[in-house]
Amino acid sequence: MSSVLLLSCPDQPGVVAATAQFIADHGGTIIHAEQHVDGVVGSAGAVFFQRLVFDLFGDTAHGDLLDAFAPTAAAFDMAVELHDDTTPIPTAIMASKQPHCLYDLLGRWKSGELPMDLRVVISNHPDHAGLVDHMGVPFVHLPVTPETKPDQEAQVLAALAEHGVELVVMARYMQILSDHFISHYPMRIINIHHSFLPAFIGANPYRQAHERGVKLIGATAHYATADLDEGPIIAQDTDHVSHRENVSQLTARGRDLETVVLARAVRAHLEHRVAVHGHKTIVYN
Amino acid sequence: MSSVLLLSCPDQPGVVAATAQFIADHGGTIIHAEQHVDGVVGSAGAVFFQRLVFDLFGDTAHGDLLDAFAPTAAAFDMAVELHDDTTPIPTAIMASKQPHCLYDLLGRWKSGELPMDLRVVISNHPDHAGLVDHMGVPFVHLPVTPETKPDQEAQVLAALAEHGVELVVMARYMQILSDHFISHYPMRIINIHHSFLPAFIGANPYRQAHERGVKLIGATAHYATADLDEGPIIAQDTDHVSHRENVSQLTARGRDLETVVLARAVRAHLEHRVAVHGHKTIVYN
Amino acid sequence: MSSVLLLSCPDQPGVVAATAQFIADHGGTIIHAEQHVDGVVGSAGAVFFQRLVFDLFGDTAHGDLLDAFAPTAAAFDMAVELHDDTTPIPTAIMASKQPHCLYDLLGRWKSGELPMDLRVVISNHPDHAGLVDHMGVPFVHLPVTPETKPDQEAQVLAALAEHGVELVVMARYMQILSDHFISHYPMRIINIHHSFLPAFIGANPYRQAHERGVKLIGATAHYATADLDEGPIIAQDTDHVSHRENVSQLTARGRDLETVVLARAVRAHLEHRVAVHGHKTIVYN
Amino acid sequence: MSSVLLLSCPDQPGVVAATAQFIADHGGTIIHAEQHVDGVVGSAGAVFFQRLVFDLFGDTAHGDLLDAFAPTAAAFDMAVELHDDTTPIPTAIMASKQPHCLYDLLGRWKSGELPMDLRVVISNHPDHAGLVDHMGVPFVHLPVTPETKPDQEAQVLAALAEHGVELVVMARYMQILSDHFISHYPMRIINIHHSFLPAFIGANPYRQAHERGVKLIGATAHYATADLDEGPIIAQDTDHVSHRENVSQLTARGRDLETVVLARAVRAHLEHRVAVHGHKTIVYN
Repeated sequence: MSSVLLLSCPDQPGVVAATAQFIADHGGTIIHAEQHVDGVVGSAGAVFFQRLVFDLFGDTAHGDLLDAFAPTAAAFDMAVELHDDTTPIPTAIMASKQPHCLYDLLGRWKSGELPMDLRVVISNHPDHAGLVDHMGVPFVHLPVTPETKPDQEAQVLAALAEHGVELVVMARYMQILSDHFISHYPMRIINIHHSFLPAFIGANPYRQAHERGVKLIGATAHYATADLDEGPIIAQDTDHVSHRENVSQLTARGRDLETVVLARAVRAHLEHRVAVHGHKTIVYN
Repeated sequence: MSSVLLLSCPDQPGVVAATAQFIADHGGTIIHAEQHVDGVVGSAGAVFFQRLVFDLFGDTAHGDLLDAFAPTAAAFDMAVELHDDTTPIPTAIMASKQPHCLYDLLGRWKSGELPMDLRVVISNHPDHAGLVDHMGVPFVHLPVTPETKPDQEAQVLAALAEHGVELVVMARYMQILSDHFISHYPMRIINIHHSFLPAFIGANPYRQAHERGVKLIGATAHYATADLDEGPIIAQDTDHVSHRENVSQLTARGRDLETVVLARAVRAHLEHRVAVHGHKTIVYN
Repeated sequence: MSSVLLLSCPDQPGVVAATAQFIADHGGTIIHAEQHVDGVVGSAGAVFFQRLVFDLFGDTAHGDLLDAFAPTAAAFDMAVELHDDTTPIPTAIMASKQPHCLYDLLGRWKSGELPMDLRVVISNHPDHAGLVDHMGVPFVHLPVTPETKPDQEAQVLAALAEHGVELVVMARYMQILSDHFISHYPMRIINIHHSFLPAFIGANPYRQAHERGVKLIGATAHYATADLDEGPIIAQDTDHVSHRENVSQLTARGRDLETVVLARAVRAHLEHRVAVHGHKTIVYN
Repeated sequence: MSSVLLLSCPDQPGVVAATAQFIADHGGTIIHAEQHVDGVVGSAGAVFFQRLVFDLFGDTAHGDLLDAFAPTAAAFDMAVELHDDTTPIPTAIMASKQPHCLYDLLGRWKSGELPMDLRVVISNHPDHAGLVDHMGVPFVHLPVTPETKPDQEAQVLAALAEHGVELVVMARYMQILSDHFISHYPMRIINIHHSFLPAFIGANPYRQAHERGVKLIGATAHYATADLDEGPIIAQDTDHVSHRENVSQLTARGRDLETVVLARAVRAHLEHRVAVHGHKTIVYN
């Protein structure tokens, strides 16, 4: 088991040394360390970010580390998160009819590739009940209409709570979540948008792309926020297209991008490699 | 020498056969043929596009082909362009202070890589006069201010006319051209925009990209039209970036994209591989 | 329904016209046409390749076309294949323990994305029986040891024959097929190799890649031939890696490449877009 | 001015803390820190690598740091390099007839993009004398034949010494350097090979690529070592190609890869971001 420490604080001299010393003093060996300063180093307003992965060989248990670190954190005015890398995050996948992202995530989970504690799959359509069930994952079917949306969202929230979910992955769930819903999972809902944001915000991005005659299509995974398609971006990618491809061919090609980009973002989150700063992310290696 | 025939017409049966037969009848051997239908084949409004490259081994000279082809063109209501691939297009490069696209195009021209008849380099700054002069290309320095812009554009147009220019490459020429100017070279001015359009239209796209926190930067080469950054796109590409890169690092990285994407678009135009249809392009292989 | 004509013949004048005329004469409208000459056009030994997609609106039925085309084919010494694009190719997937390519192909098939008539999944391990069965596809478990290999291959061939299979997709089937086996399906077995061939031929390419310290990993889909990893390449791709990634991380990352590259190659084959010439392929758009 | 510290030592607890503490004690603020362990952390043989960029605000001058750090370095058995980022590395470019890499590097140097103290360009052909001269860089023409090679190499070494060169960039210098020559600049000669190594080692990689029918071409920048094309790889990239491209088209396309990959590697070296470990590199961000 390794410990993963994510911290941020006002940029200031001595913070790297203090944290490294703390870990050394508690019998830890640093495996990976990465840091970032947002703003100009040494100037007012600059913010320091760091991710440390370390193994403990001394007397201090992982569970006691945060208490032991509290004085250091206080001295530098740090925000701190501590994880252990053997406790996967309880996760829900939300899907609609399109299977590509759902199947892909299920496959990666089943094969052990994604460190995800998959608790439940929730969908507004029954289509994938059989496969999900076959995989041994609870499937919750909660249909939705414009009229029933508030009720349905309440049911979704109840199901998430019941399963102890801490991360929600929207695997092409084709409904816009209300601000109320999102407020329950701040920076804990990952959405995949089928364009290279900020291009082609909103509906039918492949149609928009075809009409504009772009030579690239893209996909963007981001945290869902109240501003649609404006949340912090975690991962993006593009692929070359040509005049030969019509909207449905662009859509088919885009599915591969969506699948890979969403999986990349989910993996980064599950590995505690994402820090959010304002409406941007730091994605550690 | 090969002949390059670009044609478009309403989509209809028999057009491929008629054109191929015409070439065969005139002693031509087709080297490369590519076609595209915009719209649904066989439906009203569908438009047929074709590019044919062929060598003439018979009695008909290249210069007589268009006349000979006129009846076929008329029968199918074709728009036709004929080029020979040994007569490079008379070209001007317009640049400002930034050297990367200019140097790159000069290098490709000097080494014979780009089939470009480079007639003149025009700039609103004198910085690159020495190098351009050393390369044996006329350099015209035409400074511009908001007040002198109409006059300066008239001088640029005069210089282009004087040098017989048929293609204008804006190699990071940092001035917005007037509609009047553009109307003299419809689909004959290639611009490089430093973002993956339609994202980050307008000024400072790298700053916009940094502020949005995207994980990709891009570049787009397009024909200049009256609507800024809205012209038909010829080539685009993107590159991955991370939170570590500040605006000036994004800018530096973007230069490589701009250089390569502009060169790719210019090459396509010089090789008569671009057809424009509305605000989109067909870029033949 | 569209007809797909694949042809090759010695390069010679008039072949494009003759074929286009044949299609026009039989009430066909060409939707897509693409051609390629291997070698120098007009020189001895040059070979002409063409793929034509067309819809028939006249009296000739698809089934009668080949007979009607026979004189043209004979006149130009053509090799010809004719397909209709609504009759998917009967296909088998062979897999071992690794699920990523298998799951991906099943998902694409289930969603209708791949035009594949999936007849059977054959594996030397029972691991995926449940999922395949759940998807409604026959699963044949044929374990293999060095001793039983000839017998097992005979059983595999029998199963393929029984299901009328015409394309075999090796979705990370970790056994080397005998020449005898391959000779039953010439250019009809697609394999995915987990490197950018010809680099890292043979076993453990990710380990080889790590030891060499490359900054890219890759995947290659190719037709299986008697020479291991030497068959005609259909699709390849690479991804950037760094010193930070150990062998197991390279392997994990490579799975995404393998999945996408194999799917791309299978799609090209299923859409009759691949022609083989010697040990190389022509992959039409 | 920032200080750049590159260190490596046997992996052991406390090393991160000790170094960070040293910097803090000497009035330094860490701007960027990155580390890597080759091997399994905590196991015998694992090697720790770190790159630290920091600004000194205290009493210790950059020039006194190494002496001050000596006890720490000794305690952990470190190999240490210290640079300041305002003193560019004295560099020579070696070129032959092909201009693309040479022009590109000159352009990047001229525009200030590459932090390179360009002292001299050496070539076995006179072709680029004019341009180099125009740019204000000494040009040394040293023709070579198989017979004169030892003499010519001695002259090259003399020219490099005379200009105080510490980094040699082989910008498509088409001669194989002798082991004797290379031994004068261990891990200080960067070469660009026009394939994705280890594929297509040796001569004519584009011809080899065309003959094999690959769907990718590539370029590799590496340190020159006695084993041709076997040196530690710094940067690599690939681009998609198709059956349509003949050897000369592959070659033309490859030039863009060569140019960008070489520039990327040279930049990494100039910014002190490359550490060599055996026949592999660590390239810091």
